[in-house]
Amino acid sequence: MGSPQVSTRLPTHKNVLAAQRRLRGRIHTTPILSSRSLNEMAGVDLLFKCESLQRSGSFKYRGALNATLALPRLQRKLGLATHSSGNHGAAVAAVARSLGLTATVVVPRNASKFKRQAIRRYGGHIVPCGKTLLSRERRLREVLADSGAVYIPPYDHPAIIAGQGTAGLEILQQCPGADELWVPVGGGGLAAGTVLAAGAQVQVVGAQPRLARDAHVSMRRGSRQPPMPPVTVADGLRTGLGTLNFAVLHGYQLPIKLVSEAEIIAAQKLAMSCLKILVEPSSAVPLAALLKYGPVQGGSRKVVVVITGGNVEL
Amino acid sequence: MGSPQVSTRLPTHKNVLAAQRRLRGRIHTTPILSSRSLNEMAGVDLLFKCESLQRSGSFKYRGALNATLALPRLQRKLGLATHSSGNHGAAVAAVARSLGLTATVVVPRNASKFKRQAIRRYGGHIVPCGKTLLSRERRLREVLADSGAVYIPPYDHPAIIAGQGTAGLEILQQCPGADELWVPVGGGGLAAGTVLAAGAQVQVVGAQPRLARDAHVSMRRGSRQPPMPPVTVADGLRTGLGTLNFAVLHGYQLPIKLVSEAEIIAAQKLAMSCLKILVEPSSAVPLAALLKYGPVQGGSRKVVVVITGGNVEL
Repeated sequence: MGSPQVSTRLPTHKNVLAAQRRLRGRIHTTPILSSRSLNEMAGVDLLFKCESLQRSGSFKYRGALNATLALPRLQRKLGLATHSSGNHGAAVAAVARSLGLTATVVVPRNASKFKRQAIRRYGGHIVPCGKTLLSRERRLREVLADSGAVYIPPYDHPAIIAGQGTAGLEILQQCPGADELWVPVGGGGLAAGTVLAAGAQVQVVGAQPRLARDAHVSMRRGSRQPPMPPVTVADGLRTGLGTLNFAVLHGYQLPIKLVSEAEIIAAQKLAMSCLKILVEPSSAVPLAALLKYGPVQGGSRKVVVVITGGNVEL
Repeated sequence: MGSPQVSTRLPTHKNVLAAQRRLRGRIHTTPILSSRSLNEMAGVDLLFKCESLQRSGSFKYRGALNATLALPRLQRKLGLATHSSGNHGAAVAAVARSLGLTATVVVPRNASKFKRQAIRRYGGHIVPCGKTLLSRERRLREVLADSGAVYIPPYDHPAIIAGQGTAGLEILQQCPGADELWVPVGGGGLAAGTVLAAGAQVQVVGAQPRLARDAHVSMRRGSRQPPMPPVTVADGLRTGLGTLNFAVLHGYQLPIKLVSEAEIIAAQKLAMSCLKILVEPSSAVPLAALLKYGPVQGGSRKVVVVITGGNVEL
């Protein structure tokens, strides 16, 4: 992208702690829910960290807010910009509103009305673009050049990773004694942040749709693979793994479990009917994998699953 | 019904406090959620008490558990029974499971598969009956006679009212400074319990579908009116106001606001998309009324709305 905010410094546990201090009082401490029925199905105690109940409806608010608050005040004043038709776009718009800034979100013309509405609800300004990644990036560069706005990237940035990691710190506090912590892997912002937050206290496990298994293959091959065609129903996980994200996850040797589209849809329905919350397909991926494979450690009794977002078209 | 558990003693604030002690550690302290978008629409701060995230998916678990725990141990052992195709049936089944008891639920043959599933998920035994209330009651009497099980009534009972009131006590603690507390009114278990819990600390307000306004008319006329034909989309509120419930609500002179079916459906969609939780139509009735009429007191700045249940067919 070549934007001034993209950095190649690897974030650390300390950065996650700093993000937690920065975000204090500005985000929801999202609740942990559980269901006896799901526990019985899984054969272990499952605790669901409901980031779908975070501001803007996903964990993306944490990273976007942390990256914004890390900017010099004068730079922020020119506004925020990003390209995303999904949760990150809504999060940047919601962050801007809460800080009294403007947000411009470059959205492909073929994005659903529902996704546009979520961005508009938070006061985000939508700039249409073509379908391809190239078209998105060109349009975003024009917006940045015209407005002087700051680019808030979706996942490949230390402040984004550190911000997402604050969900992991909350989990350690809310779920003492947890053996494993399962997250979906898309760009890898949440996964990398969680790995940094968790340290050696708890085993982090990733999950991906088989149709978007670039991170899974990247871990095996030891080199970052390009994204697969964006076809999985888990639309939040269609994106490719980021560079910094890969570095963190590869250093940790993150185990990544794969599930089919049918398994994702079944787990989504199950989670919604048992937990009584909206669960988007991407968020059902770790539950699907857990029900399929079980915990990765033989002795695990207590497993935390992050419900990343609740943006479902009704 | 003529069952031995039906009592005509009016419950009091003390009974709600006793219920709270009895339920401690056995129920979820359900979270309070909020949405800036909904605050802007309502023009006041709205706090949503999410009893949809209670065990069994509704506040009904509180009353059913309190009534069961109030029974002598030997009597409980014979099992629980009730007639309900809705949240109360699921609650009684879930309470029985948590205490290692059996539950028999008399369910009309025309109830949806979804509702039967909810009861079965908690291990409840379903006994089919005809559509009419008479048929339900006859079948329940047979079950009680055959099994010796204890009837756990849905709302017209002091222990049920006191149990539901514990949600109100939690609200007072979680939302200090609340001016008003809005609840839907069906049989009146939650409304009466909330009135007893709240005392003079906060103004309780009820809401009903215009198509099921028996409690509204009962308040105006000073005498309990029969239920209206069960046609509203808010299926949890089709039932008539109970005797004890009427006595408590009439003593309080509960204001009850009315809304149309279209207003209920619009508020349901709005609540789900802003709060990211499942909201059943009955639970959307107070929000619909609040958006229509505003708070009942001119100076109210902070209003709590109880989301009573999340049992929505997906």
